[in-house]
Amino acid sequence: MPDTTLFPPEQLFDFTVRVFQHLGVPEADARTAATVLQAADLRGIDSHGVARLHTYFDMLQLGRIDPKANVTIVRESPSTATVDGGNGLGLVVGPKANAIAMESNTNHYGIAGYYVLEALKRDLIGWSMTNATKSVAPLWGAERMLGTNPMAIAFPGLEEPPIVIDMATSAAAYGKIEIARRVGKSIPKGWAIDRNGAPTTDPNAMIDGGAQLPLGSDRDGGGHKGYGLALMVDVLSAVLSGANWGPFTPPFALRQEMPARSVGKGIGHFFGALRIDAFIDPDEFKRQIDDFVRTLRKTRPAPGTTGPLIPGDPEREAEAIRRREGIPLVAAVVDELRDISRQTGIPLGNKH
Amino acid sequence: MPDTTLFPPEQLFDFTVRVFQHLGVPEADARTAATVLQAADLRGIDSHGVARLHTYFDMLQLGRIDPKANVTIVRESPSTATVDGGNGLGLVVGPKANAIAMESNTNHYGIAGYYVLEALKRDLIGWSMTNATKSVAPLWGAERMLGTNPMAIAFPGLEEPPIVIDMATSAAAYGKIEIARRVGKSIPKGWAIDRNGAPTTDPNAMIDGGAQLPLGSDRDGGGHKGYGLALMVDVLSAVLSGANWGPFTPPFALRQEMPARSVGKGIGHFFGALRIDAFIDPDEFKRQIDDFVRTLRKTRPAPGTTGPLIPGDPEREAEAIRRREGIPLVAAVVDELRDISRQTGIPLGNKH
Repeated sequence: MPDTTLFPPEQLFDFTVRVFQHLGVPEADARTAATVLQAADLRGIDSHGVARLHTYFDMLQLGRIDPKANVTIVRESPSTATVDGGNGLGLVVGPKANAIAMESNTNHYGIAGYYVLEALKRDLIGWSMTNATKSVAPLWGAERMLGTNPMAIAFPGLEEPPIVIDMATSAAAYGKIEIARRVGKSIPKGWAIDRNGAPTTDPNAMIDGGAQLPLGSDRDGGGHKGYGLALMVDVLSAVLSGANWGPFTPPFALRQEMPARSVGKGIGHFFGALRIDAFIDPDEFKRQIDDFVRTLRKTRPAPGTTGPLIPGDPEREAEAIRRREGIPLVAAVVDELRDISRQTGIPLGNKH
Repeated sequence: MPDTTLFPPEQLFDFTVRVFQHLGVPEADARTAATVLQAADLRGIDSHGVARLHTYFDMLQLGRIDPKANVTIVRESPSTATVDGGNGLGLVVGPKANAIAMESNTNHYGIAGYYVLEALKRDLIGWSMTNATKSVAPLWGAERMLGTNPMAIAFPGLEEPPIVIDMATSAAAYGKIEIARRVGKSIPKGWAIDRNGAPTTDPNAMIDGGAQLPLGSDRDGGGHKGYGLALMVDVLSAVLSGANWGPFTPPFALRQEMPARSVGKGIGHFFGALRIDAFIDPDEFKRQIDDFVRTLRKTRPAPGTTGPLIPGDPEREAEAIRRREGIPLVAAVVDELRDISRQTGIPLGNKH
């Protein structure tokens, strides 16, 4: 593991709020955006927390994102709405659209899991999907055509913690490939191809013009299924909302390549929520979820393991530790935050 | 490939209708059931066509399935319904519930893809999921706890054929493991574990007390994601509708082990349909799907391949060939149909 410095969560939260406000984001929206970033840092999804603050900072400072964008409903039916995020900050548009259900024309919205946890608080089964800049090759393709296109859904228990499924549809997270490059290690077979479309275990070969592989990796492993899931997320998030899809989805960061053409507005998300009581008594549902969770925990463990986890376990454990001990940031991220601090005059404060 | 005999589709359809009628299924329902089985045979999903007729025959003859079951709505809201299939034939209950949207207490419903193709005819984005008898181990588990739990969704194009995603959430279809056993071949690594939870390439080791692996196979490959998807399908199909879930899902065939306890009624399905025009102009949506399909077809091919397929391509090609040339049945399936013919007096007719 790389060297990290621990920061109290509240300190990073306050810094983030002030940075967004400094860039013209209204206070309530700045707090919303900081909440989504903090959820990622607390839940151990380091790639999606303050590690991205400098990118949002760059985009806002250059006027690529509108800090005061209006969120408008462009089409609606009794149970659906298409929302235009007005090129606003995804971390603000996302939560607003999540409260409605379906939206478009926005920027990177943070972790998919945040949105489904919000739905849980209201006894809803929430789901959340987003498309993303091209990074993944379809099975039998030699180039990037789809994003890592994540999806999340959560189910509440009564006494047990909720089941929280939050996953990219690629074989591995891009962040893991970047970490392997940084520490000079190879990556497992099945994660990536090089610029010629050949399988590779060299992280540089993927990053320099190669592509990630979809969940399932190759034909034998079911790579056509991961590709199908990525395509499904792209269509529901972007085609259905009039956003850019597939290889034309705009990049998150400034240094990334701009798409060859525009086929819609911004990137797209797809939010939904099911009322449990529309289908079954909610307490009965939650009792069955408790039973399901306990049944899965009793599964006989595979050799060399402690047995199956419940989706959401690792993030919940990370959150308990990080709330207590602080959020560990690698030196590169601390440097980025200090750079923002220098440019804005907002103090980052001391570490733990 | 094993030796096969070609049968005209209509002949197998008529035979199937008469067999279901013989067993007390009303004619309209018998035709519906035969239509779902035929869709599988035409689309090349041989495991789910008339290869299953003898199992339905057994279950109906022994009174395990009610041929005249009523389908009732037990709970509804303006946009949802929970349907009780009354222990009816899944091939009949499924289509009825698909027309409503959500159901429970039924038996094996055929291929998930059939239902989403029906939705396409009405400019809807349909999805369909079902849970199934335990066969798959959760990641890090050493025993069967979940079914192959498939999901399907389809998106219509304007000039291009639709995108049809129809996939089990396991690394491979169980039918492929059975075929490997029959021809005495090994299976790829990542498909299965043996009864001790150790990875195996021996199809017998999986079938005799082992388990299938979820999509992604192991931790490096993202096996926790396939496990999460299987769990999602189980909860939406079964927990939400009051059906049996996970390891307690009843078996499809007589020879399979009965679950340790009952936690609901029958097995569960989850159908849904989105009106495209609730989100965006349907013609605009279909034009973008056409563009997406053409863009994906232009992907640079990986070495040794002809480039990516569009989900639904293989099934569409199989259907074109089989409508023209007939449906190929292996000897074991022909024997089963002849057995039904002998027991019922219904002629199977001659092959092509």
